[in-house]
Amino acid sequence: MKRTLLSLATVAALGLSAPLHAADALMERANTFFQPIPANPPALKDNAVTHDKVELGKMIFFEPRLSNNHMVSCNTCHNLGMGGDDNLEVSPGHGWTRGHRNAPTVFNSVFNVAQSWDGRSEDLKAQAKGLIRSGLRMYATPEVTVETLSSMPEYHAAFAKAFPGESNPLTFENLAKALEAFEASLITPASRFDQFLEGNAAALSEQEKTGLSLFMENGCASCHNGVNVGGQAYFSFGLAAKPGADILPPDDKGRYAVTETAVDNYVFRAPPLRNVELTAPYFHSGKVWSLEQAVDIMGRYQLGTELKDEEVKAIAAFLRTLTGEIPRIELPQLPVSTDATPKPTMR
Amino acid sequence: MKRTLLSLATVAALGLSAPLHAADALMERANTFFQPIPANPPALKDNAVTHDKVELGKMIFFEPRLSNNHMVSCNTCHNLGMGGDDNLEVSPGHGWTRGHRNAPTVFNSVFNVAQSWDGRSEDLKAQAKGLIRSGLRMYATPEVTVETLSSMPEYHAAFAKAFPGESNPLTFENLAKALEAFEASLITPASRFDQFLEGNAAALSEQEKTGLSLFMENGCASCHNGVNVGGQAYFSFGLAAKPGADILPPDDKGRYAVTETAVDNYVFRAPPLRNVELTAPYFHSGKVWSLEQAVDIMGRYQLGTELKDEEVKAIAAFLRTLTGEIPRIELPQLPVSTDATPKPTMR
Repeated sequence: MKRTLLSLATVAALGLSAPLHAADALMERANTFFQPIPANPPALKDNAVTHDKVELGKMIFFEPRLSNNHMVSCNTCHNLGMGGDDNLEVSPGHGWTRGHRNAPTVFNSVFNVAQSWDGRSEDLKAQAKGLIRSGLRMYATPEVTVETLSSMPEYHAAFAKAFPGESNPLTFENLAKALEAFEASLITPASRFDQFLEGNAAALSEQEKTGLSLFMENGCASCHNGVNVGGQAYFSFGLAAKPGADILPPDDKGRYAVTETAVDNYVFRAPPLRNVELTAPYFHSGKVWSLEQAVDIMGRYQLGTELKDEEVKAIAAFLRTLTGEIPRIELPQLPVSTDATPKPTMR
Repeated sequence: MKRTLLSLATVAALGLSAPLHAADALMERANTFFQPIPANPPALKDNAVTHDKVELGKMIFFEPRLSNNHMVSCNTCHNLGMGGDDNLEVSPGHGWTRGHRNAPTVFNSVFNVAQSWDGRSEDLKAQAKGLIRSGLRMYATPEVTVETLSSMPEYHAAFAKAFPGESNPLTFENLAKALEAFEASLITPASRFDQFLEGNAAALSEQEKTGLSLFMENGCASCHNGVNVGGQAYFSFGLAAKPGADILPPDDKGRYAVTETAVDNYVFRAPPLRNVELTAPYFHSGKVWSLEQAVDIMGRYQLGTELKDEEVKAIAAFLRTLTGEIPRIELPQLPVSTDATPKPTMR
């Protein structure tokens, strides 16, 4: 307490560094768990990012003709005007079918260890290729996807620019690379929490700081950490007690579907919490609409703690400081179909 | 022919006006049928257009929470990156239901005499209100729509800015006004045909000029005229002979559904042809994908003329000069749902 009696003028006059406030200790500790979102996207493995590749990826991201009914684009479920997801329990796909999991946000997804709730996609390229093929989503094949884009001269030109020197640039693999390059650009830096991590103690209110402290001390940050405040590793859902079947449906065994290993039963990737206030409803089942309720559930079933009402509110308030600057996107103009473009199915 | 032997220098020296080339005669005649798209949108009846109103209308245009499943926005069927429509035969709506008519483009729709294939909506406000209510489309009610937008403080603020001085600005009527203001901004000036109308004879190729001439002399321009090259009046489809049931389904009697007058059986608004190359498939049934085939069909069934192959090609080439400058749209960021926001139905 004594230290805080030094006026800032005295500190400046003595050439001392700023005194160690409680906020500084919190800031220091937070920096052991979390990292700010960098101003620029990270480098991608085997996929050099160029402006032309990002622009092509943006066209493809908004391209409903990737799906066999010409109605579902990446942006349908990962809406860039709605937090990078669709704000639905589970997403619709081909023929009004429903998947069984909530769509994760595309924003900052490049920082995740792998993609999808069970990590089945090692990177954004694999995620895109999987969803295009999925009978629940776009219900297309690599062949028809390439045939579709190949039918339009503008895509030929855009692939040639994005993949210079390649004799056959318009491939399914390059489509995935272009999408990855665009999606990697969808990062949301400069949240208030980032500003705090970078040294601005005033960026968080007292309640938010309390929430951050609770988030670290109660064990939330054991799973939700790193640059994405989650998305880094896999954990059993319901460590302390299993939530009800509505929240943790018994037939979705999570990562077990990927590894077929008993220890992976009901194991999921800890969801990244960046922009979490924009991405309700919550959990892989998408059954919980309130952030406060989600925090309460995690306390009960994951940590075995009944959080007090004001603790829940403080943690939720902290989580709302994770909302960053959303990238500004100009809607791309898509090329016109030609006689050679496969027709949509009307089922 | 003699006149063209005068050199331009001679013309200039003598102070003569430019000689009457064939192109000038064509230009003059074209100006009796058509008008260029103005650089700015026209004034709207009882709806002063302001920047704030347009910005609000843009948010609403991209707002999937207008629909009761939170999945269908105006942009779903009137995709601003795909010519202002969805490039599907008929559009999907609630629960994967299908309407029975092709979605008209929203671009330049403000210049149409009325909206929809049968003119059932007197203006863009009525069109929006009808589609929000439609069981085939958004399947919502005015009450739930207002309740939805009212649940988000950002919409309260945006309506208050767009409708200053009103004690209760967030109404269904004002929603429609904001949409109309935004949609009226979606005009596509400066097509090559507009440049030609405005005096640039070099804006069209010889083939395109031939097509324009055929379009006027064969009678196409009797119905497809004005600023939108159509969209001005109602005509019987199949004047010379009825097309097959695939193109003119017997159960869709067109404007009869609006007027319940026998003379309106199979009467439709002549579709506006601006940007027609971007809006396949064609006709109210959406069954024809090729612009050339559409021209051929109109020749046979509407004009009773079997157009020669090169005439069809020339007319189609002319129609492709109607593609204008598409407005650049930044994807709006939509507010976050609150606890008071009605939940989507998951049917």
